[in-house]
Amino acid sequence: QSSVTVFGVIDLAARSVDNGASQYQLAGSGLNSSRLGFRGTEDLGGGLKANFWIEGAINADDGNATGQTWQRRSTIGLQGGFGEVRFGRQKNPTGLTWEQLDVFGDTGMAASGRLHQLFSVPTGGAYSSFSRSSNSISYDSPTGTGFFGTAFVAAGEGAVGNKYIGGRVGYRAGDLLAVFSYGETQVTPSIDAKLITFGATYDLKAVKLFGMYSTTDVGAADQKNLLIGASVPLGATTLRASFHKADGGGSISNREAKQFSLGAQYDLSRRTALYTTYSKIDNSNTALTVATGSTLRSGDGSSGYEFGIRHSF
Amino acid sequence: QSSVTVFGVIDLAARSVDNGASQYQLAGSGLNSSRLGFRGTEDLGGGLKANFWIEGAINADDGNATGQTWQRRSTIGLQGGFGEVRFGRQKNPTGLTWEQLDVFGDTGMAASGRLHQLFSVPTGGAYSSFSRSSNSISYDSPTGTGFFGTAFVAAGEGAVGNKYIGGRVGYRAGDLLAVFSYGETQVTPSIDAKLITFGATYDLKAVKLFGMYSTTDVGAADQKNLLIGASVPLGATTLRASFHKADGGGSISNREAKQFSLGAQYDLSRRTALYTTYSKIDNSNTALTVATGSTLRSGDGSSGYEFGIRHSF
Amino acid sequence: QSSVTVFGVIDLAARSVDNGASQYQLAGSGLNSSRLGFRGTEDLGGGLKANFWIEGAINADDGNATGQTWQRRSTIGLQGGFGEVRFGRQKNPTGLTWEQLDVFGDTGMAASGRLHQLFSVPTGGAYSSFSRSSNSISYDSPTGTGFFGTAFVAAGEGAVGNKYIGGRVGYRAGDLLAVFSYGETQVTPSIDAKLITFGATYDLKAVKLFGMYSTTDVGAADQKNLLIGASVPLGATTLRASFHKADGGGSISNREAKQFSLGAQYDLSRRTALYTTYSKIDNSNTALTVATGSTLRSGDGSSGYEFGIRHSF
Repeated sequence: QSSVTVFGVIDLAARSVDNGASQYQLAGSGLNSSRLGFRGTEDLGGGLKANFWIEGAINADDGNATGQTWQRRSTIGLQGGFGEVRFGRQKNPTGLTWEQLDVFGDTGMAASGRLHQLFSVPTGGAYSSFSRSSNSISYDSPTGTGFFGTAFVAAGEGAVGNKYIGGRVGYRAGDLLAVFSYGETQVTPSIDAKLITFGATYDLKAVKLFGMYSTTDVGAADQKNLLIGASVPLGATTLRASFHKADGGGSISNREAKQFSLGAQYDLSRRTALYTTYSKIDNSNTALTVATGSTLRSGDGSSGYEFGIRHSF
Repeated sequence: QSSVTVFGVIDLAARSVDNGASQYQLAGSGLNSSRLGFRGTEDLGGGLKANFWIEGAINADDGNATGQTWQRRSTIGLQGGFGEVRFGRQKNPTGLTWEQLDVFGDTGMAASGRLHQLFSVPTGGAYSSFSRSSNSISYDSPTGTGFFGTAFVAAGEGAVGNKYIGGRVGYRAGDLLAVFSYGETQVTPSIDAKLITFGATYDLKAVKLFGMYSTTDVGAADQKNLLIGASVPLGATTLRASFHKADGGGSISNREAKQFSLGAQYDLSRRTALYTTYSKIDNSNTALTVATGSTLRSGDGSSGYEFGIRHSF
Repeated sequence: QSSVTVFGVIDLAARSVDNGASQYQLAGSGLNSSRLGFRGTEDLGGGLKANFWIEGAINADDGNATGQTWQRRSTIGLQGGFGEVRFGRQKNPTGLTWEQLDVFGDTGMAASGRLHQLFSVPTGGAYSSFSRSSNSISYDSPTGTGFFGTAFVAAGEGAVGNKYIGGRVGYRAGDLLAVFSYGETQVTPSIDAKLITFGATYDLKAVKLFGMYSTTDVGAADQKNLLIGASVPLGATTLRASFHKADGGGSISNREAKQFSLGAQYDLSRRTALYTTYSKIDNSNTALTVATGSTLRSGDGSSGYEFGIRHSF
């Protein structure tokens, strides 16, 4: 009767971070996000399937001091020839696009997400629907090659920052993936954050190329991001590099940040990998850092490196 | 060696609620309570079994922001020809009886539980042992047809609201289930809440009837509840309706509330169902609502409807 | 693909505690610590293995009101002919040694850990790395008989009380286990707690003997602990007894405590056991208690007994 799959990732890295002052850390999720989840599919006949998926983050360095929650994903869906309709909490089109177009998967010390918010959230505002949304209803077109699309809406339920309306269209064929996404998040009752992201990946076998451009508009502030990356497979080893540039506009036109990252992954098996990552951020006058840690003086740079091991089950 | 069953329910519904002001929501547990659990049984020989069961609630709409706990049930029991003795946290006889005699299972927008507390808890008091009790020891008579009974005690451990002493006796045969339960919960060190509940369900095949009557006595306040319900199976579809009336007495004789609910469930399989529910509460002068949401002005009515999907694993 | 083992322990006991005033309780973890965990091993070939282990505590008496976390253990390790290297949160050498040399496994009402801290932590200090450490990197020599050793370091990451440096060496052969461990924990930025523990167990078949001696040095305070214990197997029953004495020195030379404990365990199977434990603490002038509960007046004694059931899965 029970048909549940237990799955997860444990990923830990020994890390040095220099945000003005240097600190050694043991840190989670350097290559992939550590997680524990339960998922399953029931075949309902006639091509129809019911899916469920609950997945929570684990801070394996300290045993997840905040308690197990399913905030990475908790969904129930109906899937058929028409595509899939899902209810619940999940990555929204904006978050999914960032993850796919970043050679580091928007994860770890080199995650591109750190440069996605040069602006300050207005007084009284929140910005919690950045990459995942609670209370969402989504429609995904059928999977396969060729064009695909997602429509996505998340109820605000009276809380600033929770509302999200968005979607994306893409094209997948052979070595190419191209995506365009749009998302609107409510920052205050009167100000929306509007995010346009587009880009592509192209796999030349000897090297896989990643490119992404995004614009964010939040009241009087706006910013433009350009991210380029590449990965090179060498047997069991994969090398990765990326460069990310964020330029403020409007009321934050004096803000700018650049991030440069290098990584190497060595696969002991399909499930277990050793890796090392180096990343460096230069800020004009906002305090973005490659990882949490020491307080950073405004305008200072930040850098760090880590050696880790990832196991998925 | 390991003999654990992972089980659960994910149940999410798109919902509209009008508690004075209207709001759209994605909400969990419209048909059954969303949960994740682990349970198992070990055969010890000679008819003796050891049972364990841990089960926690999931708020699948936002990924359970408060963290996974096993507050729905966490028990260890020894079971044999004598019945079963259990230690831990579990539904107490009062809660079990409400669940069995409500055609909506005391769950979702139509849950009868919303009319079970017209009274205000006295200053310095708590009322946490309403339907589940921590620190409990229970004895259940052997399962089967005919008479059955439960004796139940939960240690207060110095905390107001935790203590519970109760039990129930019932009769199950063919299409009939009849139950009488008594429970005492400590509200303040000097005031007990005393709850008597009795009723029956009778399955006429074309329709199943539900009836429940309860009296609650809390210091100077008391209330009487009458709940009637019916379910009608039509192939894969089940229709449900209930009417619930709560009358205050003593110091709250001016309080009264009525709830009327309608529901339909369509089974895609034994495990997956689509459903819709409508419910409406009229209050004389207390602010009971069909679901959490907007603040309700005292005496106002509340109504809502939802469309959901439930999958159990 | 998935290769995860779900495991755990549920252990609950009906308990009476007298810490000045008497109280009845239902309590967890009288014989073994209640827990839920997920673990797995992947064979990487060439004698190399990847291990993961996440394990959290369960308060089964109230359903773990604080939420499921993996604070008992969350590790990823690489194991081979060289031994094992692990990253994450885990028992440190000090905690492991206490557990092995206490006939009650440092668990339940008779746990020796209650007498390990006569001293008060200095103002501004913390002492959280007592038996487990977050952010740790450990090396264990290969398992088997003969000599073994562990080296262990935990990053403080700027938080007082988190830092830990330690290790242990031991010898295991036939009926003998002998262990020496050293651990340093940071209590304040300028004060370290230094813990030396050594002892042995010897299995004479008719009786197994346990002995442990430890010294703790925390700034101006220090203490010495002597723990002796014995277990006697009688068919499915095991009897246990221990005596523990803690003597303060330096600034706490007026503090002393003694604990005497008796226990009996009856195995219904390898996985399920009934047990009873009695324990009594006499304090000179510090308020150590056999279990949490009523407030104890300084210098008073404390005693309690419990009847429980443990099931592991």
